[in-house]
Amino acid sequence: MPKQPRPEALERLCKALSRLPGVGRVTSERLAYHLVQVPEAEALDLAEAIRTARREVRVCSQCFNLDQEDPCKICQDPHRDRKLLLVVEGPREVAAFEQSGYAGLYHVLQGRVSPLEGISEKDLSLQSLLRRVEEGEFKECCLAMNPDLEGEATADLCYSVLKKTGILVTRLARGIPAGASILQVQQPILSDALHGRRKY
Amino acid sequence: MPKQPRPEALERLCKALSRLPGVGRVTSERLAYHLVQVPEAEALDLAEAIRTARREVRVCSQCFNLDQEDPCKICQDPHRDRKLLLVVEGPREVAAFEQSGYAGLYHVLQGRVSPLEGISEKDLSLQSLLRRVEEGEFKECCLAMNPDLEGEATADLCYSVLKKTGILVTRLARGIPAGASILQVQQPILSDALHGRRKY
Repeated sequence: MPKQPRPEALERLCKALSRLPGVGRVTSERLAYHLVQVPEAEALDLAEAIRTARREVRVCSQCFNLDQEDPCKICQDPHRDRKLLLVVEGPREVAAFEQSGYAGLYHVLQGRVSPLEGISEKDLSLQSLLRRVEEGEFKECCLAMNPDLEGEATADLCYSVLKKTGILVTRLARGIPAGASILQVQQPILSDALHGRRKY
Repeated sequence: MPKQPRPEALERLCKALSRLPGVGRVTSERLAYHLVQVPEAEALDLAEAIRTARREVRVCSQCFNLDQEDPCKICQDPHRDRKLLLVVEGPREVAAFEQSGYAGLYHVLQGRVSPLEGISEKDLSLQSLLRRVEEGEFKECCLAMNPDLEGEATADLCYSVLKKTGILVTRLARGIPAGASILQVQQPILSDALHGRRKY
């Protein structure tokens, strides 16, 4: 058996760090040695930030967004457009749309169908979505999945659940991203842009 | 001012994570959302591993390695060869050489000279190295810096400090790395290998 090259507390820290997504053995070692060599307050601040986030952040029982209040601040806000519902895959997408200036409500699916990762429709908050649309005053439900295969499959699933309610179901526009060059975007993007062309 | 898209506790966690080396804004967000969505025990285990490592891991007052004891387990070990001293840049290099089967003692410089990063010889444990060589029973001191410009400059500096003691100063062999293909290694590696050729 090879001898343990590191003190036990450092080994434990490497193991805990290597469970993070995208952090392999080498990176976890680099981070662990960094954390024991920076000023102590900096390392302890990270530990405390993790503990605080776990204590304070919860899932909103209405829209499944993450917040420190339940219902979340967005669901509580009387100034938001309560007729428009944006369905997104996860809470990071909520943060992204918030920065874009969107002012309606959200429904967080808590994932996307992905046979490879073993995520099926039972793992998503689809029944809650249906209930909110049936019981709420929404006029439009916009499916804002990511523009890839799993996102498309997830949007199809949402549509099949929602169509019987008669609500207007929409999707995000697809086309040339603002700031891009026509010569440099890929062919499926140009196809989308042509297919979705609008009156000038 | 753009509105805050995330709850405060998540924002704080993103900030703390983005101080880690190689972790930018996007990665810190991914890690923060991961940490509030995994099972609570997994996140709290990371926080506790950081706190434990900071509490338990200290710098050895003899060789400047990191360990939970002072002097460190290596300095204390009566079975190690106390005539051979390997000078390395940092504690991660100690862990690497430990796995290679090295059985002498170490001296950790705690860095390398790097004008760009503002690290000069005053920041390294050079005077302690000199004192250990003068007062100890070492017969050989091997400079095991990384094979790059800053490593070479650091080794030169060590040599200039050590030569007046008359100890045998050596350096790591440079040549073709075990397992490599002669067709694929770079030209400076082949030059090193030719220049350092040995009797068959």
